[in-house]
Amino acid sequence: MTNIIDGLQCGHFDRDSFTALQSAGLSGVVVTCGFWEGTVESLDSLGRWRDLIAENSDVTTIALTPDDIVQAGRDGKVAAILGYQNANLFEGRIRFVELFAELGVRVVQLTYNNQNELAGSCYEAEDSGLARFGREVILEMNRAGMLVDCSHVGNRSTLDAIEASEKPIAVTHANADSLFAHKRNKTDDVLRALGETGGVIGCAAYRNITGDHYCKSIENWCEMVARTVEIAGIDSVAIGTDRSHNFTAPDYAWMRMGRWTRGIDYGAASAARPGKAPPPDWFLTLQDMDKIPNGLRSVGFSEEEVEKIAHGNWLRLYRATFRNSDS
Amino acid sequence: MTNIIDGLQCGHFDRDSFTALQSAGLSGVVVTCGFWEGTVESLDSLGRWRDLIAENSDVTTIALTPDDIVQAGRDGKVAAILGYQNANLFEGRIRFVELFAELGVRVVQLTYNNQNELAGSCYEAEDSGLARFGREVILEMNRAGMLVDCSHVGNRSTLDAIEASEKPIAVTHANADSLFAHKRNKTDDVLRALGETGGVIGCAAYRNITGDHYCKSIENWCEMVARTVEIAGIDSVAIGTDRSHNFTAPDYAWMRMGRWTRGIDYGAASAARPGKAPPPDWFLTLQDMDKIPNGLRSVGFSEEEVEKIAHGNWLRLYRATFRNSDS
Repeated sequence: MTNIIDGLQCGHFDRDSFTALQSAGLSGVVVTCGFWEGTVESLDSLGRWRDLIAENSDVTTIALTPDDIVQAGRDGKVAAILGYQNANLFEGRIRFVELFAELGVRVVQLTYNNQNELAGSCYEAEDSGLARFGREVILEMNRAGMLVDCSHVGNRSTLDAIEASEKPIAVTHANADSLFAHKRNKTDDVLRALGETGGVIGCAAYRNITGDHYCKSIENWCEMVARTVEIAGIDSVAIGTDRSHNFTAPDYAWMRMGRWTRGIDYGAASAARPGKAPPPDWFLTLQDMDKIPNGLRSVGFSEEEVEKIAHGNWLRLYRATFRNSDS
Repeated sequence: MTNIIDGLQCGHFDRDSFTALQSAGLSGVVVTCGFWEGTVESLDSLGRWRDLIAENSDVTTIALTPDDIVQAGRDGKVAAILGYQNANLFEGRIRFVELFAELGVRVVQLTYNNQNELAGSCYEAEDSGLARFGREVILEMNRAGMLVDCSHVGNRSTLDAIEASEKPIAVTHANADSLFAHKRNKTDDVLRALGETGGVIGCAAYRNITGDHYCKSIENWCEMVARTVEIAGIDSVAIGTDRSHNFTAPDYAWMRMGRWTRGIDYGAASAARPGKAPPPDWFLTLQDMDKIPNGLRSVGFSEEEVEKIAHGNWLRLYRATFRNSDS
C-alpha cells in the first residue's frame, strides 16, 4: 500500500479518526491544534492532543522528526504532526516560537482568516504583505525548526514569506486559483515561487475551494493534482485535504467568527451555501483516501511521481525544516 | 489661567506628575495605560492606575465623562482620562471593547508600532488600510463610547478609520508631516479629512517627531500649531504633547522592542540618536506647559481660538464620543 502523508486535517479527532486513517494507509497527518486560540488556550489544546495520542498509542504517535513519520509507517501507525492554523499561540512574543517548538509544534500558519501582526490574510480587502513581526517570526521558525504555512495567508504575503524565509515553506492546504478561482487558492506566481524554492502545496479536497468538477470523482481530483504539478513542478505538489473530523455548527462558528465579530462570516463558504460543504463524491469516508494512489496512477503519474505526491515531497520538506531533522 | 487638556502623555506618573500638571493649569490628560500588553496585563495596569489616582485624590481623579474634566478644572484637579496605545487589551475579542469601556477606558489606539488585526502601522513598509477586525472594533468603540486614536496608525489606515467610524476620531499625538517629515506624522490629506469630519489632532512636543526648529521656543512650537490649523482648521487642532514621565532605558526598550523582536528598533528615534530625545528647549519641566496659552496668543490666535486649542476641541470631541456623554 502506498504510504500517504496528509498536510492538513482539522477537527475533533477520536480513536475512530486514527483507525480510519490507518486503514487508508496514512503514515502521517498534520493536525490542527488551534485557530484563534492565544497562548494559554493553545497550551490547553496541546495538552489535550498529547493525552488523546497517548491514549491511542497503539495506532498513533506524535511525530517530532520526519523519521518518526517513517517509523510510524513501518509500525502501521499514523503519526500526528502538531500544527496551528494561526500565530496567536505566540501572542506577539518572538521567544515563544522556540518554546512551542520544544513542546513539539512543527507547523504554524502565519495567519488564519484575518490580518494579524505577521501578515495579510486571503480574506482581507488588501494584503499588506509580510509585516515586521512576520519577518522576525519566519526567521525564528527557521531557526527553531518549524515549518511556515501560508495556506490562508494572502498571495502577496505568501510571496514575501517565500522570499524572507531561509528555508522552503508550505501551503499545506489550498488549490491553484487558476484551476478553481477562490480567495483561499493560490495564484500561479505563488505556485511557481514555491516550486523554485523547494516549497510544497498540499492539494485540498474541501469542496468550497476545490469546486464541484474536481470533487466529482477521484480521477477528476487527481486531474487537478496533475494540472497543479504542471504549474508548481513534481517536487512541489502533495496532499493537504483540509478534511475535518466531527465538526458541528459551533465548530464552524468558531472557525469563521471566532471572537472577532458579532456578525456572520462565511469563511470559505458563502451566503448561498453557508453550512458544512458536502465532501467530494469520492471522499465520503476517511477510508476513501486509499483511492488516491491509484487515482494518481490513472491520470498518468509514474510510480516515482505517485510516491512524491503521496508522501515524498512532504517528507523532503519536513527534513529541510523540522527541528532535529538530522537525528 | 487658561485651562489645558493634553491629549496624550505616558510613562510612570507619580504624585509629582499630577501636582506639576496641576500647577501648569491642566484640567485633563489622557494617560497611557499600555503599549503591548494583552488583556490580563492591561487589567493589571488599569488596577495600578486606579490605585495611583485614588491615592492622590486631592489632586487627580478619573474622568469618565467630559463633565468630569470640567469639574476637575473647577476643583483645581487634573482629571486622568484612561487610554491605551494599542488594541492588544482586547486580544481579538470584539466583546471586550464594552467591558473595558465599563471599566473606564475612554481612548484606544488601533495599533501601536506594528501592524495588527485592526490596521496598518506608520512603521510598516506597507500600510494595509483598515482590516476586517478594525472595522468591527471601530463600530463597537463608537457604540461603547470610546474615542478611536490613530496616532501611530498608518496614513492609509487612518483615512479608512475616519471613513469607517460613525463618530469623529482623534490623532492624539502627532504632527503634520508637511511641517516635519516623519513616519509618525500625518499627511495633509489625513489632517484635512480629520477637519472635515470633526476629528482632532493633538500637536506633539516630542522632539523626534517635532524637529529642532519647532522645539527651539514656545513661539516656534506655537507657529507649528498655527500652520497645522491652516491645514486642519481651527476646530480640529489641539495639544497632545506625548510627554513621558520618569522614563528610563528599559521603558524605551519595552516601547520599541516589546516582545516582538530580539533586534533593535528605534521607534521614532534613529540609530544616530537612539536614546531619550531631549525635550523641547521651552519644555524642560512639566510646569512649562503653562507657557502654551500665551505662546498661542503670541502667534496671533484670538482668545476664543486659544480656548479651542487648549481644551475646547478635545472637550467637544470627547462629548461626541465618550460613553455617558449626556450625563
